[in-house]
Amino acid sequence: MTRAYFDHLSAAPLHPEALKAMMPFLGEEFGNPQSLHSYGQKAAAALDEARDQVAGLIGASAEEVYFTASGSEANNFAVKGLAQAHPGKGRHLVVSAVEHLSILNPVKSLEKLGFSTTTVPVDSAGRVDPGAVERAITKDTALVSVMTANGEVGTIQPVAEIARACRDRGVLFHTDAVAAAGSIPLDVGEMGVDALSLAGDQFYGPKGSGALFLKKGTRILPLIEGGVQESGRRAGTENVPAIVGMGRAAAVALAEMENRKSRLLPLRDRIIEDLPRAVDHVMLTGHRSLRLPHHASFCVRFIEGEGMLLGLDMQGVQASSGSACTSKALKASHVLLAMGLDHATAQGSLVFSLIEGTTAAEVDHLLEVFPPVVDRLRKMSPLYTEYLKEKAR
Amino acid sequence: MTRAYFDHLSAAPLHPEALKAMMPFLGEEFGNPQSLHSYGQKAAAALDEARDQVAGLIGASAEEVYFTASGSEANNFAVKGLAQAHPGKGRHLVVSAVEHLSILNPVKSLEKLGFSTTTVPVDSAGRVDPGAVERAITKDTALVSVMTANGEVGTIQPVAEIARACRDRGVLFHTDAVAAAGSIPLDVGEMGVDALSLAGDQFYGPKGSGALFLKKGTRILPLIEGGVQESGRRAGTENVPAIVGMGRAAAVALAEMENRKSRLLPLRDRIIEDLPRAVDHVMLTGHRSLRLPHHASFCVRFIEGEGMLLGLDMQGVQASSGSACTSKALKASHVLLAMGLDHATAQGSLVFSLIEGTTAAEVDHLLEVFPPVVDRLRKMSPLYTEYLKEKAR
Repeated sequence: MTRAYFDHLSAAPLHPEALKAMMPFLGEEFGNPQSLHSYGQKAAAALDEARDQVAGLIGASAEEVYFTASGSEANNFAVKGLAQAHPGKGRHLVVSAVEHLSILNPVKSLEKLGFSTTTVPVDSAGRVDPGAVERAITKDTALVSVMTANGEVGTIQPVAEIARACRDRGVLFHTDAVAAAGSIPLDVGEMGVDALSLAGDQFYGPKGSGALFLKKGTRILPLIEGGVQESGRRAGTENVPAIVGMGRAAAVALAEMENRKSRLLPLRDRIIEDLPRAVDHVMLTGHRSLRLPHHASFCVRFIEGEGMLLGLDMQGVQASSGSACTSKALKASHVLLAMGLDHATAQGSLVFSLIEGTTAAEVDHLLEVFPPVVDRLRKMSPLYTEYLKEKAR
Repeated sequence: MTRAYFDHLSAAPLHPEALKAMMPFLGEEFGNPQSLHSYGQKAAAALDEARDQVAGLIGASAEEVYFTASGSEANNFAVKGLAQAHPGKGRHLVVSAVEHLSILNPVKSLEKLGFSTTTVPVDSAGRVDPGAVERAITKDTALVSVMTANGEVGTIQPVAEIARACRDRGVLFHTDAVAAAGSIPLDVGEMGVDALSLAGDQFYGPKGSGALFLKKGTRILPLIEGGVQESGRRAGTENVPAIVGMGRAAAVALAEMENRKSRLLPLRDRIIEDLPRAVDHVMLTGHRSLRLPHHASFCVRFIEGEGMLLGLDMQGVQASSGSACTSKALKASHVLLAMGLDHATAQGSLVFSLIEGTTAAEVDHLLEVFPPVVDRLRKMSPLYTEYLKEKAR
């Protein structure tokens, strides 16, 4: 059976070069970077190199990069750590309605500690209006957090403009770049952000790798306290293999970004154009052009995402119905609802996210198997039967 | 040159069986356990097996095990999450004076939020008196946390007695078993603990793996919030390779525990007995018998640990001067000071922690190279010169 993996969003394969770089540190080079002896020093040197590589991906200095174990950890660290480290800056937060749950849930926890939040809406393409963010900022605002790109609908946000509005008002700005880093060019200087989260596994690095960029001189409270690792800002024995793998993956992503984009964009565009032609009642979600180069997402009316995922999987096609962090929860995505979709339509969410190795033949296979999968499910769908009856009247 | 690695405390090599179990998940099996499709389901099944294996190591049920990315994260999760999830239980904490910094620093943060703490002292062997813990408990006590064994001095604590005292008073009890888990038999039921932290890399599992045992029905606030992973109690894409590696390492540790102990105990005892004979002014730290089976620790008077580590490393011997989390900080260990040692003596701390593969020949090598290393350093030590002058009077 032809296999066609279109679920980059949930998990991308580890790049062979990243794995190769990791292997010594899963074997003989098992030292702890904090140890003074030779094993420790080799591990420490590997950490330094990885820090340079991750910094290079986003135009940061190495000492501005703090390793974490995931994008979610980086987001929690940023939101809780920045909001609480600046008591003089007030107790008001601004986020967009389409942030990841690892932003929104920490914000809810901060509310229990006395913070208040303004949630800025998005348009039907999932875009945040920088003017709306600017208007949401008050004298009491401590932190603004708006993502660089959305994993569920692929939409890229006007982060530089939002950052400028924050800077003008003297407010800290964090961006969750987990879905974006490694896939589109990012430069923290040009973006003008104070903090940025990323995750290695989104650019073919290993699971369990993430980082927070924090602009030099920015105060933050640690999330994980204890030892002196990461300049005392993130305790715990460094996961050397994962960090080394993320570093190598970052270097490859930087070098390959344009190549990957020019290869994947036409494939992505074929999905975006041909899927709604192949099946009725399929609509693109997210922005048509301001979107991640490997990302195509839709809502398919009258059926639920879950059934399509299983039906497609039986045909060798792997996709996602949204964030892997909520996929088993089977609730309508807060992202799609914020874009103005109704609950029933939002239930039919489907994300096809391409990986580096995706081929034209795999896209062909998807376009071939998708219509019969949808047909079969619609035949069993009461919603569709009702729609046909209405239409026949 | 003979190599002799005695720094299990900072880093142990990954067990070949753990690496073997991990490899598929660093390659073809890269799915996200939250995905509904076949890649996801394979990853989810692997996670289930690892959860059973880790639960098996400590006599827990699988659903009581929450994966983290380190022992430090598990400790932060436990202390902050348990203390703050039970507002009805009061705002007082009890810890021992020899806890790891990933316990003590979170406790300090909780103090800033209005909690108060009683720090229970230890005796000269580093042991906590369960009676002292009992007396420290007040009506306002929310949580007691005392470690199972200390990584710096090897001393094993009377955890079951402490747990009983807590249970009698209706107080939650957490134990940091990071240094102990995998090395000595642990059964959460027999111990009577409500929560227990462990780290995979302490029993030949991978770096970046840890877990918190949480007794069924115990409320806790998440540290890392966001997605639905780990029953909503610890967000972030699961690090499947690391978790699988920890699981396999846990299964091996359980099967091999007695073998390892009977092999390492005589080697450890040779170090404990012969090192102080080979060099003057060397004293064992920690309890002579109630200690981890792979752990020998000393204070060497008149010189500092750092010089010894580098001198030994040049002879192929790797050791540690205490917790890797503080080794570069070069402060006298709070553990040794709590045991009544003076600052100068505590500076001469040395930990030799054996790994599974440690051989008699390596111990011979250590005993051979140690005296000249100490001699050379003492010749350069003003403290030692002064001591000799005093003695000559």
